[in-house]
Amino acid sequence: MRRIAIVGVGLIGGSCALAWRRAGIAGHIVGVGRGRANLERALELGVIDEIASDAASGVSGADVVLVAVPVGQLSSVLAEMLPALSPAVLVTDAGSTKQDVVAAARAVLGARLPRFVPAHPIAGAERSGVAAARAELYHGRQVVLTPLPETDAATLDDARRLWAACGARVSTLSPERHDAVFAAVSHLPHALAFALVDMIARRGNAEQLFGYAAGGFRDFTRIASSSPEMWRDVCLANRDALLAELDAYLAHLASLREVVAAGDSARMEDIFGNARRARDDWLKSIEDGK
Amino acid sequence: MRRIAIVGVGLIGGSCALAWRRAGIAGHIVGVGRGRANLERALELGVIDEIASDAASGVSGADVVLVAVPVGQLSSVLAEMLPALSPAVLVTDAGSTKQDVVAAARAVLGARLPRFVPAHPIAGAERSGVAAARAELYHGRQVVLTPLPETDAATLDDARRLWAACGARVSTLSPERHDAVFAAVSHLPHALAFALVDMIARRGNAEQLFGYAAGGFRDFTRIASSSPEMWRDVCLANRDALLAELDAYLAHLASLREVVAAGDSARMEDIFGNARRARDDWLKSIEDGK
Repeated sequence: MRRIAIVGVGLIGGSCALAWRRAGIAGHIVGVGRGRANLERALELGVIDEIASDAASGVSGADVVLVAVPVGQLSSVLAEMLPALSPAVLVTDAGSTKQDVVAAARAVLGARLPRFVPAHPIAGAERSGVAAARAELYHGRQVVLTPLPETDAATLDDARRLWAACGARVSTLSPERHDAVFAAVSHLPHALAFALVDMIARRGNAEQLFGYAAGGFRDFTRIASSSPEMWRDVCLANRDALLAELDAYLAHLASLREVVAAGDSARMEDIFGNARRARDDWLKSIEDGK
Repeated sequence: MRRIAIVGVGLIGGSCALAWRRAGIAGHIVGVGRGRANLERALELGVIDEIASDAASGVSGADVVLVAVPVGQLSSVLAEMLPALSPAVLVTDAGSTKQDVVAAARAVLGARLPRFVPAHPIAGAERSGVAAARAELYHGRQVVLTPLPETDAATLDDARRLWAACGARVSTLSPERHDAVFAAVSHLPHALAFALVDMIARRGNAEQLFGYAAGGFRDFTRIASSSPEMWRDVCLANRDALLAELDAYLAHLASLREVVAAGDSARMEDIFGNARRARDDWLKSIEDGK
């Protein structure tokens, strides 16, 4: 039974708290955050046991610290808590980009750097706030850890067990590889969906166009209802990898455009068929893995 | 109670048959099609009352003819049935592009052209075959009619009532406007989704990339599991409008790329926020319309 501090008790931090409590590894959970009302709600809901007035007093004596704040606040939160971190602490985070998190940790954590294990729990965050938190949020989902050369081996093992206790499948990637992979399968699709809806919304006949949009459009653009602030930060944090993917996609789409312009029906069917086969194989592999 | 001929008794033709029977407007339903086994299944399921051996005998004496065949077969089916069409017949179709359908009808139907009302019932066709047919498929969905200057006014009214009897909301557009609208809100998103999955599938590390793809990717790419043959035909049939949309999107995405490259966070947030607002307003208007 461990003393756990959660900095940022929203959907993500709150869900981890509930999962760790259910798994029997949380003896006492301290919540830290800017919004007093939100923390009081978390206390009422039994997500946390105690509200700390600031990050330093919150993490004091904690065995585990989860920092689940917007990535732009990470540096200042780490700096604030640093003097109060115990030498044997495990610090982890939940940011969806990792090279920027690693750079912030490197700049701030000093002698505690080996105790920090960067983590990216992958779950659609359409809702937010502690009221949406649930113990099952990461059940069957993936959590990617991106350890550094300096990361303490026992601390990394501990982080694996901790995230696995949420019901997640835990894997590791380098921070660079992580950011390249998620630029392709997450950040690029978000940019494409935002761009499509923005383009249509700016048309003179936008109302007519939306009036005829149906289920395919709704699913395709679901991720364009994501938080603009969060995605601005993701695009800034992972700019180089995202630009590489945008360039690759612009080139790929331009070549599809030429195939359509040429009326090359065999090539069109090949591209569409390859996409359908790959997607169906992917869905099957997910089903088989369950 | 009317005699109805359905040419192509699949998901679409079969669902219309079931809906018209339930609405009490179908006295006798004749099915025509290439696949004998499929027609026998339709007969067993009570979707049709009779199997006709060919299009001409199937439409003979019919008050209403629905042609629900792949758009590439439309011309030959219309030509085959023409000599047997009664002067007072209503002919309608279910193709997802309309200028090509109108051109085929114009080339073939001669004196029967005023009795033809082109229609596009909008429902995701992820499944196919008569076994998937259901009377509710078009309930609450939209059906767009694209009448010609030559279309008989009473026949158009009749087509409106017929499609409304499926539970659909019926509207009209010119064939040109129809194809432009659907290039933007349907054909372009399909091309974008096919292109993304195809690009990732061709990478050396495709397996790793798909391994980290999550729910956002799944929804974004759902339409990339659509029929390659059908979408090849749609892209060929609506080539000019699709090319215009592809060019507009390539330009819009290239400008988003420049915003990301410049690290212009205010502009990024503006684009993403505009997209989210427009999408949320659209979803709300759908809810309000129910």
